[in-house]
Amino acid sequence: MREAIIPGRWSERMTFSPAVRVGNLLFISGATATDDDRQIVGVGDIVAQTRHIFRKFAAILTAAGASFDHIVETTDYFLTLADYDKTAVVRREFFRPPYPAATGVQVAALIRPDALIEIKAIAVLDALRV
Amino acid sequence: MREAIIPGRWSERMTFSPAVRVGNLLFISGATATDDDRQIVGVGDIVAQTRHIFRKFAAILTAAGASFDHIVETTDYFLTLADYDKTAVVRREFFRPPYPAATGVQVAALIRPDALIEIKAIAVLDALRV
Amino acid sequence: MREAIIPGRWSERMTFSPAVRVGNLLFISGATATDDDRQIVGVGDIVAQTRHIFRKFAAILTAAGASFDHIVETTDYFLTLADYDKTAVVRREFFRPPYPAATGVQVAALIRPDALIEIKAIAVLDALRV
Repeated sequence: MREAIIPGRWSERMTFSPAVRVGNLLFISGATATDDDRQIVGVGDIVAQTRHIFRKFAAILTAAGASFDHIVETTDYFLTLADYDKTAVVRREFFRPPYPAATGVQVAALIRPDALIEIKAIAVLDALRV
Repeated sequence: MREAIIPGRWSERMTFSPAVRVGNLLFISGATATDDDRQIVGVGDIVAQTRHIFRKFAAILTAAGASFDHIVETTDYFLTLADYDKTAVVRREFFRPPYPAATGVQVAALIRPDALIEIKAIAVLDALRV
Repeated sequence: MREAIIPGRWSERMTFSPAVRVGNLLFISGATATDDDRQIVGVGDIVAQTRHIFRKFAAILTAAGASFDHIVETTDYFLTLADYDKTAVVRREFFRPPYPAATGVQVAALIRPDALIEIKAIAVLDALRV
């Protein structure tokens, strides 16, 4: 059944997994730009936060035997439109065409203080992994 | 094709299903803590509302021949961070490790008055059900 | 792997695809009621905007060899509850029972000025297309 993908430090107190794989589907939890000490990397800088989130995705994808090529959709929840368009630069660093589907909306608040953006994703791994 | 999962009372006026199954995928609509009379259970209490939503999920999962073990991701949309951390207690009541992926964001409003939280989910059923 | 579904005009500057198909799964990006010139159709009219979005979905579905019957879930992000209930009329124009799963939340803002609603969707195509 579902298998947790936990690439880094993780607390027993958490009631969710950073990502879950079942068959060839990989569901990546909404992530903010926290480091291993739960501090936000890139305070006030939505571009830096996006880059850190994708680095966390990279660790998850590697642990699942996958890559950014397998991500089929991302959902961005952000707190400000200021500089949000500049996060496209980060997408080009991690994704190559054809790009995944994407949705982005401004929300009222994120759980983590200082987080400007949270991103979730779904990936479909190679059929061989089913 | 898609099959509606409708465990309880449902109105012909609705233009969505409580859940939809196709193959071994189950998509659960965003649910608030409404009872069969469309009244919110646990007004002012996000923990009680979360518990009621998961009870509704339980009815859906049973009707689909599935369980909480099959849920791979949840998305929480809530109106307040006050006591939101306490909803983790409810997750422990219904889920067992490895936990599903999860995303949670504070939104501007929910459709249902008095609702403090709305949760959607995706489940992957056993391959035998495909 | 993932295949981009691009039914109309699309800019090389975009870092996402209108939709992505992999196997029999189709992920449709969050869409607002923009026309080919990136102008909102139905300014101030959430019902007209919803209809335009579903027309864009129709083009995507056709390009993917699918139909509204294959959509399994939709997520609505809207800016106002005023007249939101009237968007159900549009759902009846495009969907037939059993209806897909659905989630709808009011967000703080959408990227596109004048957009009142943004909708994303997931479809599962016929197994023959896997």
